Amino acid sequence: MDTRSPDTHDLTDTERLDRLRLIRSENVGPRTFYSLMKHFGSARAALAALPDLARRGGASRIGRTCGVADAEREIADSARIGVRLIAPGEPGYPERLAEIDDAPPLLGIRGTADTLLRPTIAIVGSRNASGAGLKFAQTLAHDLGDAGFVIASGLARGIDQAAHRATLQSGTIAVLAGGHDRIYPPEHQDLLAAIVSSPGSAISEMPLGHVPRAHDFPRRNRLISGLALGVVVIEAAHRSGSLITARFANEQGREVFAVPGSPMDPRCAGTNALIKQGATLTTEAADIIDAVRPIMGRPVASPLGEPDDLPPFGADPAHNERAGIAALLGPSPISIDDIIRMAGVSPAIVRMVLLELELAGRLERHGGGLVSLI
Amino acid sequence: MDTRSPDTHDLTDTERLDRLRLIRSENVGPRTFYSLMKHFGSARAALAALPDLARRGGASRIGRTCGVADAEREIADSARIGVRLIAPGEPGYPERLAEIDDAPPLLGIRGTADTLLRPTIAIVGSRNASGAGLKFAQTLAHDLGDAGFVIASGLARGIDQAAHRATLQSGTIAVLAGGHDRIYPPEHQDLLAAIVSSPGSAISEMPLGHVPRAHDFPRRNRLISGLALGVVVIEAAHRSGSLITARFANEQGREVFAVPGSPMDPRCAGTNALIKQGATLTTEAADIIDAVRPIMGRPVASPLGEPDDLPPFGADPAHNERAGIAALLGPSPISIDDIIRMAGVSPAIVRMVLLELELAGRLERHGGGLVSLI
Repeated sequence: MDTRSPDTHDLTDTERLDRLRLIRSENVGPRTFYSLMKHFGSARAALAALPDLARRGGASRIGRTCGVADAEREIADSARIGVRLIAPGEPGYPERLAEIDDAPPLLGIRGTADTLLRPTIAIVGSRNASGAGLKFAQTLAHDLGDAGFVIASGLARGIDQAAHRATLQSGTIAVLAGGHDRIYPPEHQDLLAAIVSSPGSAISEMPLGHVPRAHDFPRRNRLISGLALGVVVIEAAHRSGSLITARFANEQGREVFAVPGSPMDPRCAGTNALIKQGATLTTEAADIIDAVRPIMGRPVASPLGEPDDLPPFGADPAHNERAGIAALLGPSPISIDDIIRMAGVSPAIVRMVLLELELAGRLERHGGGLVSLI
Repeated sequence: MDTRSPDTHDLTDTERLDRLRLIRSENVGPRTFYSLMKHFGSARAALAALPDLARRGGASRIGRTCGVADAEREIADSARIGVRLIAPGEPGYPERLAEIDDAPPLLGIRGTADTLLRPTIAIVGSRNASGAGLKFAQTLAHDLGDAGFVIASGLARGIDQAAHRATLQSGTIAVLAGGHDRIYPPEHQDLLAAIVSSPGSAISEMPLGHVPRAHDFPRRNRLISGLALGVVVIEAAHRSGSLITARFANEQGREVFAVPGSPMDPRCAGTNALIKQGATLTTEAADIIDAVRPIMGRPVASPLGEPDDLPPFGADPAHNERAGIAALLGPSPISIDDIIRMAGVSPAIVRMVLLELELAGRLERHGGGLVSLI
């Protein structure tokens, strides 16, 4: 069970509302959310502290805190379209997803909840895939479904939709980049309806009404890999979104599988490069099943996760400590461990200053314990 | 320098003639040739012993020993079409090829001898390659040629000819399965002429007039890999000849490179399988150059070669020893080491009995020190 959220199973309605307000407040991402919960013990206490923390972090403008009415409306509207908001550790939250550093503090779930509890393989790839790539995606997804795996993907054109369609009967998960009522691409509305009425489901961490923008897709990709034992990439050009999913999979300790292709086909440059970097060359379902079977029972630990050594409360940085830590930061990502070493102050102080900067909208957290100034 | 042939550099005409007679005699392959040279010290002495050895091995019919006149005629006819017959260790014999267990005791060489002394990469693949495969073979061969490598291949249709044609200017080697005057396929007569008049050459271990049969091609493939630092396989179906070349490369300690392709294309099943088994995935010349550069200066030792521990002379098996060793053999290959252990006699005796059986046409030698009854 996740130690970041000590009292997650069966949240009270009030607690769920407080947590929703906290994660929907400006400058609060999942990592900040968990830090705040650690420091303040509850979402309610964190919400009360937000303005002061942001001020100490040097905010030019104090970020908006999500109000009670907005959060209540989101919960009610979500329920109306069959979306439940669930926290890590609550029944129904996908177990592997709960293990990643930046698991959504509240995940919007629609469809058959059981699907999210079964062993899952993600299949991703080109939107403009070749006929052979689409056919391979279908066959592979179908065979993995037959073998008892649920298939997760991103509901995109090309490989994604082929993988979903081939597993409507066996179980598939659409991971959305926008809110549950803002489907992208719009022409996949029907596919999504078929998914959630079959033994499938759709998940999103975004509020209802959120129209997905370009930067929401890479962010969403960490959920695709996070859900899964492994990610299969079928046809991906250099610098494609599927490679971002593969990178997340690596950081999260998931297996990475890639389907080879001709060096003459630019749609295969990314997958061939992944294999060169150590991904498992995949030509049939057995390649995947053989690799994940031994790890299915094992919990996954993020190899690059931040050390979980936050003190619960009370670090109170002095003005010169705050200035010293801020001076060490710049636009290039630096590890928190390095900052602690160079600043010569306690880890608790460093973490509190970073939290303040983050809430002031001045800090960006990357994977692997790296941070940079915005 | 090769210890199997202690006096190879600058053979006298008589020695060359004797050696040619020995390798052209029935049931004498390269491995038997070297064993006989070890046991008898010279080709002349081995030739004299052949009938008696075959009789002791239980030959129903004593194999034909190549006569002086035939060997003289082969040397003269070869010279007439520009083919020199060279022994391992003599100037002009490809150095890496000389290192393999079953290097041709006399190699027929035509064209530019220097080509055979430069670092070589073999490129092999499907006869019915795709357009993309042919184009890739051209580009890769050309780029490797530019980087200073000679390209060896089998003069076949498809990938082979594309690799040769792309390297007519930089240097290419055609490795023939038949005699130098029996080109297969016949329509590549012109290509061969272009190769040997460019800075290229053609090699064969077969006598003039020998029309290549099906089993000559896999046997020839060991020379393609043996010449090279590494073998690149471009498009190969399951069970194709190119995979035999890759297997030889492995046994000979050469690098194996394979070009990936779609799992939906049966022409790529073999290459994808090679990558799964550990071949280096190759999409550009740099993949090969980076891998072979560190080993270019190093001599290659066959990882699975027979231990070179033959006593020079005089093992004389008793009748019951001969019968006991023969009884251990069957149609399934067994290792010579196992026979030595099980027979409970000296290695020298076992080797002599195997030599007798071989000359009687009753024994087949496989790679890796394995033998079986025919």
